[in-house]
Amino acid sequence: MIKTIESRSNEKIKSAQKLAASSRFRNERREFFLEGARLCFDAAASGITLKQVFFTESCAEKYPEKLERIISSADEAYKISRDVASKLADTQSSQGVFAVCAMPQGDGAGIKKDGKYILLENIQDPANLGAIARTAEALGIDGAVLCGCCDVYNPKAQRAAMGSLLRLPLIFCGDAADTLKRCVENGMLTLAATPDKNAEKITDISLSGGVIAVIGNEGNGVTEETMAVCRRVTIPMKGRAESLNASMAAALVMWEMMRQPENT
Amino acid sequence: MIKTIESRSNEKIKSAQKLAASSRFRNERREFFLEGARLCFDAAASGITLKQVFFTESCAEKYPEKLERIISSADEAYKISRDVASKLADTQSSQGVFAVCAMPQGDGAGIKKDGKYILLENIQDPANLGAIARTAEALGIDGAVLCGCCDVYNPKAQRAAMGSLLRLPLIFCGDAADTLKRCVENGMLTLAATPDKNAEKITDISLSGGVIAVIGNEGNGVTEETMAVCRRVTIPMKGRAESLNASMAAALVMWEMMRQPENT
Repeated sequence: MIKTIESRSNEKIKSAQKLAASSRFRNERREFFLEGARLCFDAAASGITLKQVFFTESCAEKYPEKLERIISSADEAYKISRDVASKLADTQSSQGVFAVCAMPQGDGAGIKKDGKYILLENIQDPANLGAIARTAEALGIDGAVLCGCCDVYNPKAQRAAMGSLLRLPLIFCGDAADTLKRCVENGMLTLAATPDKNAEKITDISLSGGVIAVIGNEGNGVTEETMAVCRRVTIPMKGRAESLNASMAAALVMWEMMRQPENT
Repeated sequence: MIKTIESRSNEKIKSAQKLAASSRFRNERREFFLEGARLCFDAAASGITLKQVFFTESCAEKYPEKLERIISSADEAYKISRDVASKLADTQSSQGVFAVCAMPQGDGAGIKKDGKYILLENIQDPANLGAIARTAEALGIDGAVLCGCCDVYNPKAQRAAMGSLLRLPLIFCGDAADTLKRCVENGMLTLAATPDKNAEKITDISLSGGVIAVIGNEGNGVTEETMAVCRRVTIPMKGRAESLNASMAAALVMWEMMRQPENT
Protein backbone atom coordinates (compact mmCIF):
# COMPACT_ATOMS: atom_id res chain seq x y z
CA MET A 1 0.00 0.00 0.00
CA ILE A 2 2.87 2.41 0.79
CA LYS A 3 4.76 2.99 -2.43
CA THR A 4 8.43 3.90 -2.71
CA ILE A 5 9.97 6.86 -4.55
CA GLU A 6 13.66 6.73 -5.29
CA SER A 7 13.96 9.22 -8.13
CA ARG A 8 14.58 12.91 -7.52
CA SER A 9 12.77 13.68 -10.76
CA ASN A 10 9.54 11.95 -9.75
CA GLU A 11 6.62 14.24 -10.66
CA LYS A 12 5.15 14.22 -7.14
CA ILE A 13 8.50 15.21 -5.66
CA LYS A 14 8.94 18.00 -8.19
CA SER A 15 5.46 19.29 -7.49
CA ALA A 16 6.02 19.17 -3.71
CA GLN A 17 9.25 21.10 -4.08
CA LYS A 18 7.53 23.72 -6.20
CA LEU A 19 4.84 24.12 -3.54
CA ALA A 20 7.57 24.83 -1.01
CA ALA A 21 9.19 27.44 -3.23
CA SER A 22 6.37 29.27 -4.98
CA SER A 23 3.51 31.19 -3.41
CA ARG A 24 1.92 31.44 -6.86
CA PHE A 25 1.98 27.68 -7.35
CA ARG A 26 0.48 27.23 -3.88
CA ASN A 27 -2.40 29.49 -4.77
CA GLU A 28 -2.97 27.81 -8.13
CA ARG A 29 -3.08 24.38 -6.56
CA ARG A 30 -4.69 25.45 -3.26
CA GLU A 31 -2.05 23.26 -1.65
CA PHE A 32 0.92 23.89 0.61
CA PHE A 33 3.99 22.02 1.81
CA LEU A 34 5.07 21.17 5.36
CA GLU A 35 8.33 19.71 6.67
CA GLY A 36 8.99 18.07 10.02
CA ALA A 37 7.42 15.43 12.25
CA ARG A 38 5.87 17.92 14.65
CA LEU A 39 4.40 20.20 11.98
CA CYS A 40 2.93 17.36 9.91
CA PHE A 41 1.52 15.80 13.07
CA ASP A 42 0.01 19.11 14.19
CA ALA A 43 -1.53 19.63 10.76
CA ALA A 44 -3.21 16.23 10.90
CA ALA A 45 -4.37 16.89 14.47
CA SER A 46 -5.76 20.28 13.42
CA GLY A 47 -7.97 18.70 10.75
CA ILE A 48 -5.87 19.75 7.75
CA THR A 49 -6.14 17.32 4.82
CA LEU A 50 -2.78 15.68 4.11
CA LYS A 51 -2.92 14.78 0.42
CA GLN A 52 0.52 13.18 0.26
CA VAL A 53 3.05 12.27 2.89
CA PHE A 54 6.72 11.48 2.13
CA PHE A 55 8.96 9.88 4.74
CA THR A 56 12.36 8.25 5.03
CA GLU A 57 13.24 4.95 6.67
CA SER A 58 15.15 6.75 9.40
CA CYS A 59 12.15 8.96 10.15
CA ALA A 60 10.05 5.82 10.63
CA GLU A 61 12.62 4.63 13.18
CA LYS A 62 12.95 7.92 15.02
CA TYR A 63 9.32 9.08 15.19
CA PRO A 64 7.25 5.88 14.90
CA GLU A 65 4.18 7.14 16.77
CA LYS A 66 3.95 10.57 15.20
CA LEU A 67 4.54 9.06 11.76
CA GLU A 68 1.82 6.45 12.23
CA ARG A 69 -0.69 9.18 12.97
CA ILE A 70 0.56 11.26 10.03
CA ILE A 71 0.33 8.31 7.59
CA SER A 72 -3.07 7.23 8.83
CA SER A 73 -4.37 10.75 8.18
CA ALA A 74 -2.91 10.96 4.68
CA ASP A 75 -4.61 10.24 1.36
CA GLU A 76 -1.33 8.84 -0.02
CA ALA A 77 1.95 7.89 1.69
CA TYR A 78 5.34 7.34 0.06
CA LYS A 79 8.57 6.03 1.47
CA ILE A 80 11.44 8.04 -0.04
CA SER A 81 15.18 7.51 -0.21
CA ARG A 82 17.59 9.73 1.67
CA ASP A 83 18.60 11.25 -1.65
CA VAL A 84 15.03 12.25 -2.51
CA ALA A 85 14.56 13.61 1.02
CA SER A 86 17.60 15.84 0.61
CA LYS A 87 15.91 17.40 -2.40
CA LEU A 88 12.80 18.26 -0.37
CA ALA A 89 14.55 19.28 2.85
CA ASP A 90 14.84 22.97 3.63
CA THR A 91 16.31 22.65 7.12
CA GLN A 92 19.81 21.50 7.95
CA SER A 93 18.64 18.87 10.40
CA SER A 94 15.69 17.55 8.43
CA GLN A 95 13.60 14.90 10.14
CA GLY A 96 12.79 13.24 6.82
CA VAL A 97 9.03 13.72 6.79
CA PHE A 98 7.09 16.01 4.46
CA ALA A 99 3.46 16.58 3.54
CA VAL A 100 1.49 18.18 0.75
CA CYS A 101 -1.65 19.61 2.35
CA ALA A 102 -4.88 21.12 1.08
CA MET A 103 -5.37 24.76 2.02
CA PRO A 104 -8.25 24.95 4.46
CA GLN A 105 -11.41 26.63 3.14
CA GLY A 106 -11.88 30.05 4.65
CA ASP A 107 -14.25 29.26 7.53
CA GLY A 108 -15.72 32.74 7.34
CA ALA A 109 -14.30 33.65 10.75
CA GLY A 110 -15.38 37.17 11.56
CA ILE A 111 -14.17 39.73 14.07
CA LYS A 112 -16.13 39.42 17.29
CA LYS A 113 -17.00 42.78 18.89
CA ASP A 114 -15.72 41.81 22.30
CA GLY A 115 -12.62 39.91 21.15
CA LYS A 116 -8.92 40.71 21.21
CA TYR A 117 -7.26 40.78 17.78
CA ILE A 118 -3.94 41.61 16.22
CA LEU A 119 -4.04 43.16 12.74
CA LEU A 120 -0.84 42.65 10.76
CA GLU A 121 -0.33 45.20 8.00
CA ASN A 122 2.25 44.38 5.31
CA ILE A 123 4.37 42.07 7.49
CA GLN A 124 6.86 40.74 4.95
CA ASP A 125 9.17 38.41 6.88
CA PRO A 126 7.65 34.91 7.06
CA ALA A 127 9.58 34.22 10.29
CA ASN A 128 7.95 37.27 11.91
CA LEU A 129 4.49 36.23 10.71
CA GLY A 130 4.98 32.74 12.12
CA ALA A 131 6.45 33.95 15.42
CA ILE A 132 3.57 36.39 15.93
CA ALA A 133 1.00 33.65 15.28
CA ARG A 134 2.72 31.34 17.76
CA THR A 135 2.71 34.04 20.45
CA ALA A 136 -0.87 35.05 19.64
CA GLU A 137 -2.09 31.51 20.11
CA ALA A 138 -0.10 31.03 23.32
CA LEU A 139 -1.49 34.22 24.85
CA GLY A 140 -5.05 33.40 23.85
CA ILE A 141 -5.65 36.11 21.24
CA ASP A 142 -8.96 35.57 19.36
CA GLY A 143 -7.48 35.86 15.88
CA ALA A 144 -5.09 37.56 13.50
CA VAL A 145 -6.33 39.90 10.75
CA LEU A 146 -3.92 39.88 7.80
CA CYS A 147 -3.64 42.73 5.30
CA GLY A 148 -0.96 42.64 2.60
CA CYS A 149 1.25 40.20 4.51
CA CYS A 150 3.56 37.56 3.10
CA ASP A 151 2.08 34.14 2.37
CA VAL A 152 0.80 32.27 5.43
CA TYR A 153 1.76 29.00 3.72
CA ASN A 154 5.39 29.95 3.21
CA PRO A 155 7.36 27.07 4.79
CA LYS A 156 9.42 29.49 6.93
CA ALA A 157 6.23 31.01 8.34
CA GLN A 158 4.78 27.58 9.09
CA ARG A 159 7.98 26.48 10.80
CA ALA A 160 8.20 29.57 13.01
CA ALA A 161 4.51 29.21 13.89
CA MET A 162 4.94 25.62 15.14
CA GLY A 163 1.44 24.81 13.92
CA SER A 164 -0.21 27.98 15.25
CA LEU A 165 -0.93 29.30 11.74
CA LEU A 166 -3.04 26.15 11.23
CA ARG A 167 -5.08 26.72 14.41
CA LEU A 168 -5.30 30.46 15.12
CA PRO A 169 -8.36 32.02 13.44
CA LEU A 170 -7.06 34.05 10.47
CA ILE A 171 -9.09 36.80 8.84
CA PHE A 172 -7.82 38.05 5.48
CA CYS A 173 -8.71 41.59 4.52
CA GLY A 174 -7.96 43.78 1.53
CA ASP A 175 -8.08 47.18 3.17
CA ALA A 176 -6.96 47.62 6.77
CA ALA A 177 -8.47 51.10 7.20
CA ASP A 178 -11.93 49.94 6.03
CA THR A 179 -11.82 46.94 8.33
CA LEU A 180 -10.79 49.11 11.28
CA LYS A 181 -13.55 51.65 10.58
CA ARG A 182 -16.12 48.87 10.85
CA CYS A 183 -14.50 47.78 14.12
CA VAL A 184 -14.85 51.33 15.50
CA GLU A 185 -18.51 51.39 14.43
CA ASN A 186 -18.96 48.17 16.37
CA GLY A 187 -17.60 49.82 19.50
CA MET A 188 -14.14 48.27 19.42
CA LEU A 189 -10.97 50.08 20.43
CA THR A 190 -8.52 50.30 17.52
CA LEU A 191 -4.84 50.81 18.31
CA ALA A 192 -1.77 51.22 16.12
CA ALA A 193 1.72 50.62 17.48
CA THR A 194 4.38 53.23 16.79
CA PRO A 195 7.89 53.87 18.14
CA ASP A 196 6.94 57.59 18.45
CA LYS A 197 7.65 58.55 22.06
CA ASN A 198 4.86 61.16 21.98
CA ALA A 199 2.15 58.58 21.40
CA GLU A 200 0.09 57.31 24.34
CA LYS A 201 1.80 54.68 26.44
CA ILE A 202 0.10 51.32 26.07
CA THR A 203 0.24 50.92 29.85
CA ASP A 204 -1.89 54.08 30.25
CA ILE A 205 -4.81 52.80 28.18
CA SER A 206 -7.67 50.61 29.40
CA LEU A 207 -7.79 47.55 27.20
CA SER A 208 -10.97 45.94 28.50
CA GLY A 209 -13.66 45.04 25.95
CA GLY A 210 -13.06 44.50 22.24
CA VAL A 211 -9.62 45.61 21.05
CA ILE A 212 -7.83 45.32 17.71
CA ALA A 213 -4.17 46.38 17.61
CA VAL A 214 -2.21 47.03 14.41
CA ILE A 215 1.42 46.09 13.88
CA GLY A 216 2.89 47.53 10.70
CA ASN A 217 5.57 46.63 8.19
CA GLU A 218 9.06 45.83 9.50
CA GLY A 219 10.69 48.81 7.83
CA ASN A 220 7.92 51.36 7.38
CA GLY A 221 5.54 50.78 10.26
CA VAL A 222 1.78 51.32 10.07
CA THR A 223 0.51 53.19 6.98
CA GLU A 224 -0.93 56.70 7.38
CA GLU A 225 -4.41 55.65 6.23
CA THR A 226 -4.51 52.98 8.90
CA MET A 227 -3.00 55.21 11.56
CA ALA A 228 -5.81 57.71 10.90
CA VAL A 229 -8.48 55.33 12.21
CA CYS A 230 -6.54 54.21 15.30
CA ARG A 231 -5.31 55.54 18.62
CA ARG A 232 -1.54 55.73 18.37
CA VAL A 233 0.13 53.76 21.13
CA THR A 234 3.74 53.17 22.02
CA ILE A 235 5.66 50.72 24.14
CA PRO A 236 7.70 52.81 26.58
CA MET A 237 11.40 52.33 25.78
CA LYS A 238 14.43 53.44 27.69
CA GLY A 239 17.46 52.27 25.77
CA ARG A 240 19.28 53.38 22.68
CA ALA A 241 17.70 50.80 20.40
CA GLU A 242 15.41 52.85 18.18
CA SER A 243 12.62 50.35 18.06
CA LEU A 244 11.61 46.81 18.82
CA ASN A 245 11.36 44.38 15.94
CA ALA A 246 7.87 43.72 14.63
CA SER A 247 7.39 40.35 16.33
CA MET A 248 8.60 41.65 19.71
CA ALA A 249 6.36 44.73 19.49
CA ALA A 250 3.44 42.44 18.60
CA ALA A 251 4.22 40.17 21.56
CA LEU A 252 4.25 43.04 24.06
CA VAL A 253 1.06 44.60 22.66
CA MET A 254 -0.78 41.26 22.73
CA TRP A 255 0.51 40.58 26.24
CA GLU A 256 -0.89 43.91 27.46
CA MET A 257 -4.23 43.17 25.78
CA MET A 258 -4.47 39.83 27.56
CA ARG A 259 -2.80 40.89 30.81
CA GLN A 260 -4.86 43.91 31.74
CA PRO A 261 -8.37 42.47 31.79
CA GLU A 262 -7.22 39.93 34.38
CA ASN A 263 -5.94 42.66 36.65
CA THR A 264 -8.88 45.03 36.47
CA MET B 1 44.97 56.24 0.38
CA ILE B 2 41.95 53.95 -0.19
CA LYS B 3 43.24 50.86 -1.97
CA THR B 4 41.25 48.66 -4.31
CA ILE B 5 40.74 44.90 -4.08
CA GLU B 6 39.46 43.09 -7.15
CA SER B 7 40.54 39.54 -6.44
CA ARG B 8 38.32 37.11 -4.57
CA SER B 9 41.43 35.31 -3.39
CA ASN B 10 42.97 38.38 -1.73
CA GLU B 11 44.26 37.38 1.71
CA LYS B 12 42.33 40.07 3.56
CA ILE B 13 39.10 38.98 1.89
CA LYS B 14 39.75 35.34 2.70
CA SER B 15 40.48 36.21 6.31
CA ALA B 16 37.33 38.36 6.59
CA GLN B 17 35.23 35.55 5.19
CA LYS B 18 36.73 33.11 7.65
CA LEU B 19 35.89 35.48 10.52
CA ALA B 20 32.27 35.46 9.37
CA ALA B 21 32.15 31.68 9.23
CA SER B 22 34.23 30.43 12.15
CA SER B 23 33.75 31.15 15.82
CA ARG B 24 37.11 29.49 16.50
CA PHE B 25 38.91 31.78 14.08
CA ARG B 26 37.18 34.79 15.66
CA ASN B 27 38.46 33.79 19.07
CA GLU B 28 41.97 33.13 17.80
CA ARG B 29 42.16 36.52 16.13
CA ARG B 30 40.03 38.39 18.70
CA GLU B 31 38.28 39.88 15.68
CA PHE B 32 34.79 39.66 14.22
CA PHE B 33 33.03 40.51 10.98
CA LEU B 34 30.09 42.83 10.36
CA GLU B 35 27.97 43.39 7.25
CA GLY B 36 25.71 46.32 6.43
CA ALA B 37 25.80 50.10 6.52
CA ARG B 38 23.79 50.43 9.71
CA LEU B 39 25.71 47.79 11.66
CA CYS B 40 29.16 49.07 10.65
CA PHE B 41 28.06 52.63 11.43
CA ASP B 42 26.68 51.58 14.81
CA ALA B 43 29.89 49.72 15.62
CA ALA B 44 31.96 52.83 14.88
CA ALA B 45 29.57 55.00 16.90
CA SER B 46 29.78 52.53 19.79
CA GLY B 47 33.55 52.85 20.00
CA ILE B 48 34.37 49.49 18.41
CA THR B 49 37.71 49.50 16.55
CA LEU B 50 37.16 48.92 12.83
CA LYS B 51 40.41 47.38 11.63
CA GLN B 52 39.42 47.04 7.99
CA VAL B 53 36.45 48.30 6.03
CA PHE B 54 35.48 46.97 2.58
CA PHE B 55 32.94 48.80 0.44
CA THR B 56 31.61 48.80 -3.12
CA GLU B 57 31.19 51.76 -5.46
CA SER B 58 27.41 51.43 -5.28
CA CYS B 59 27.52 51.50 -1.47
CA ALA B 60 29.43 54.78 -1.65
CA GLU B 61 26.64 56.18 -3.83
CA LYS B 62 23.78 54.89 -1.71
CA TYR B 63 25.05 55.57 1.81
CA PRO B 64 27.58 58.41 1.40
CA GLU B 65 27.21 59.86 4.91
CA LYS B 66 27.20 56.59 6.83
CA LEU B 67 30.13 55.34 4.76
CA GLU B 68 32.16 58.50 5.37
CA ARG B 69 31.83 58.00 9.11
CA ILE B 70 32.64 54.31 8.79
CA ILE B 71 35.75 54.96 6.69
CA SER B 72 36.97 57.78 8.91
CA SER B 73 36.77 55.44 11.92
CA ALA B 74 38.61 52.60 10.19
CA ASP B 75 42.31 51.74 10.38
CA GLU B 76 42.25 50.61 6.74
CA ALA B 77 39.64 51.04 3.99
CA TYR B 78 39.37 49.12 0.72
CA LYS B 79 37.14 49.64 -2.27
CA ILE B 80 36.06 46.24 -3.57
CA SER B 81 34.48 45.04 -6.80
CA ARG B 82 30.94 43.71 -6.91
CA ASP B 83 32.41 40.25 -7.45
CA VAL B 84 34.50 40.43 -4.28
CA ALA B 85 31.50 41.81 -2.37
CA SER B 86 29.40 38.83 -3.45
CA LYS B 87 31.98 36.56 -1.82
CA LEU B 88 31.66 38.40 1.51
CA ALA B 89 27.89 38.95 1.44
CA ASP B 90 25.73 36.75 3.60
CA THR B 91 22.42 38.53 3.01
CA GLN B 92 20.42 38.50 -0.22
CA SER B 93 20.15 42.26 -0.39
CA SER B 94 23.70 43.11 0.65
CA GLN B 95 24.48 46.80 0.99
CA GLY B 96 28.09 46.25 -0.06
CA VAL B 97 29.86 47.36 3.12
CA PHE B 98 31.74 45.10 5.51
CA ALA B 99 34.07 45.54 8.47
CA VAL B 100 36.60 43.50 10.37
CA CYS B 101 36.42 44.68 13.99
CA ALA B 102 38.47 44.12 17.11
CA MET B 103 36.58 42.34 19.89
CA PRO B 104 36.11 44.79 22.73
CA GLN B 105 38.09 44.03 25.88
CA GLY B 106 35.86 42.77 28.63
CA ASP B 107 35.19 45.97 30.57
CA GLY B 108 34.72 44.01 33.77
CA ALA B 109 31.04 44.91 33.91
CA GLY B 110 29.62 43.37 37.05
CA ILE B 111 26.10 42.64 38.18
CA LYS B 112 24.75 45.60 40.16
CA LYS B 113 22.67 44.56 43.19
CA ASP B 114 19.77 46.82 42.33
CA GLY B 115 19.81 46.23 38.58
CA LYS B 116 17.54 44.27 36.25
CA TYR B 117 19.30 41.50 34.31
CA ILE B 118 18.47 38.70 31.93
CA LEU B 119 20.59 35.55 32.22
CA LEU B 120 20.67 33.47 29.04
CA GLU B 121 21.53 29.84 29.63
CA ASN B 122 22.59 27.78 26.60
CA ILE B 123 20.72 29.88 24.03
CA GLN B 124 21.89 28.31 20.77
CA ASP B 125 20.14 30.20 17.99
CA PRO B 126 22.13 33.33 17.07
CA ALA B 127 18.94 35.02 15.84
CA ASN B 128 17.35 34.52 19.28
CA LEU B 129 20.44 35.85 21.05
CA GLY B 130 20.46 38.95 18.84
CA ALA B 131 16.72 39.54 19.13
CA ILE B 132 16.86 39.27 22.93
CA ALA B 133 19.73 41.75 23.11
CA ARG B 134 17.84 44.20 20.90
CA THR B 135 14.74 43.97 23.09
CA ALA B 136 16.81 44.16 26.30
CA GLU B 137 18.44 47.38 25.18
CA ALA B 138 15.14 48.90 24.01
CA LEU B 139 13.44 48.14 27.34
CA GLY B 140 16.37 49.47 29.37
CA ILE B 141 17.62 46.23 30.93
CA ASP B 142 20.96 46.74 32.75
CA GLY B 143 22.76 43.85 31.07
CA ALA B 144 22.71 40.30 29.78
CA VAL B 145 24.54 37.51 31.58
CA LEU B 146 25.59 34.81 29.11
CA CYS B 147 26.26 31.18 30.12
CA GLY B 148 26.98 28.59 27.45
CA CYS B 149 25.32 30.56 24.67
CA CYS B 150 26.25 30.65 20.99
CA ASP B 151 28.90 33.15 19.92
CA VAL B 152 27.92 36.80 20.39
CA TYR B 153 30.01 37.68 17.33
CA ASN B 154 28.17 35.31 15.01
CA PRO B 155 27.07 37.51 12.06
CA LYS B 156 23.43 36.33 12.38
CA ALA B 157 23.39 37.36 16.04
CA GLN B 158 24.88 40.76 15.25
CA ARG B 159 22.36 41.33 12.47
CA ALA B 160 19.35 40.44 14.64
CA ALA B 161 20.71 42.65 17.43
CA MET B 162 20.91 45.74 15.18
CA GLY B 163 23.94 46.91 17.13
CA SER B 164 22.55 46.14 20.58
CA LEU B 165 25.11 43.38 21.22
CA LEU B 166 27.79 46.07 20.82
CA ARG B 167 26.18 48.38 23.39
CA LEU B 168 24.32 46.30 25.97
CA PRO B 169 26.58 45.38 28.91
CA LEU B 170 27.39 41.67 28.54
CA ILE B 171 28.64 39.55 31.43
CA PHE B 172 30.07 36.16 30.51
CA CYS B 173 29.89 33.46 33.16
CA GLY B 174 30.95 29.84 33.28
CA ASP B 175 28.44 28.52 35.78
CA ALA B 176 24.95 29.96 35.93
CA ALA B 177 24.05 28.40 39.29
CA ASP B 178 27.18 29.82 40.99
CA THR B 179 26.52 33.27 39.57
CA LEU B 180 22.89 33.15 40.71
CA LYS B 181 23.86 32.02 44.23
CA ARG B 182 26.04 35.10 44.56
CA CYS B 183 23.13 37.24 43.33
CA VAL B 184 20.88 35.73 46.04
CA GLU B 185 23.56 36.46 48.66
CA ASN B 186 23.54 40.04 47.44
CA GLY B 187 19.81 40.27 48.06
CA MET B 188 18.68 39.96 44.45
CA LEU B 189 15.58 38.09 43.33
CA THR B 190 16.48 35.23 40.98
CA LEU B 191 13.80 33.93 38.64
CA ALA B 192 13.75 31.13 36.08
CA ALA B 193 11.15 31.04 33.32
CA THR B 194 9.30 27.77 32.73
CA PRO B 195 6.22 26.78 30.71
CA ASP B 196 5.03 24.76 33.75
CA LYS B 197 1.52 26.02 34.54
CA ASN B 198 2.01 25.22 38.25
CA ALA B 199 4.85 27.72 38.63
CA GLU B 200 4.13 31.16 40.05
CA LYS B 201 2.67 33.63 37.57
CA ILE B 202 5.12 36.39 36.76
CA THR B 203 2.30 38.90 37.19
CA ASP B 204 1.87 37.77 40.83
CA ILE B 205 5.45 38.53 41.87
CA SER B 206 6.80 41.89 42.97
CA LEU B 207 9.74 42.74 40.74
CA SER B 208 11.00 45.87 42.49
CA GLY B 209 14.68 45.98 43.48
CA GLY B 210 17.42 43.87 41.93
CA VAL B 211 16.14 41.05 39.72
CA ILE B 212 17.90 38.54 37.48
CA ALA B 213 15.69 36.34 35.29
CA VAL B 214 16.88 33.19 33.52
CA ILE B 215 15.79 32.11 30.04
CA GLY B 216 16.91 28.60 29.12
CA ASN B 217 17.82 26.68 26.01
CA GLU B 218 15.33 26.68 23.13
CA GLY B 219 14.61 22.97 23.33
CA ASN B 220 15.40 22.01 26.91
CA GLY B 221 14.64 25.08 28.98
CA VAL B 222 16.51 26.02 32.15
CA THR B 223 18.81 23.33 33.63
CA GLU B 224 17.89 21.71 36.94
CA GLU B 225 20.97 23.07 38.74
CA THR B 226 20.00 26.59 37.74
CA MET B 227 16.33 26.07 38.49
CA ALA B 228 17.32 25.02 42.03
CA VAL B 229 18.59 28.50 42.91
CA CYS B 230 15.66 30.40 41.40
CA ARG B 231 11.97 31.01 41.93
CA ARG B 232 10.16 29.26 39.12
CA VAL B 233 7.94 31.68 37.21
CA THR B 234 5.65 31.24 34.25
CA ILE B 235 3.97 33.49 31.73
CA PRO B 236 0.25 32.73 31.94
CA MET B 237 -0.86 31.15 28.66
CA LYS B 238 -4.31 30.37 27.39
CA GLY B 239 -3.94 28.88 23.95
CA ARG B 240 -2.91 25.53 22.56
CA ALA B 241 0.66 26.51 21.76
CA GLU B 242 2.72 24.64 24.31
CA SER B 243 5.21 27.37 24.91
CA LEU B 244 6.50 30.67 23.69
CA ASN B 245 9.77 30.70 21.81
CA ALA B 246 12.82 31.73 23.84
CA SER B 247 13.07 35.27 22.50
CA MET B 248 9.35 35.95 23.05
CA ALA B 249 9.49 34.56 26.59
CA ALA B 250 12.54 36.73 27.27
CA ALA B 251 10.75 39.80 25.89
CA LEU B 252 7.71 39.31 28.14
CA VAL B 253 9.81 38.61 31.24
CA MET B 254 12.00 41.67 30.64
CA TRP B 255 8.90 43.78 29.96
CA GLU B 256 7.41 42.75 33.30
CA MET B 257 10.69 43.54 35.08
CA MET B 258 10.75 47.03 33.61
CA ARG B 259 6.98 47.64 33.64
CA GLN B 260 6.13 46.86 37.22
CA PRO B 261 8.44 49.25 39.09
CA GLU B 262 6.85 52.14 37.20
CA ASN B 263 3.38 51.15 38.30
CA THR B 264 4.03 50.52 41.96
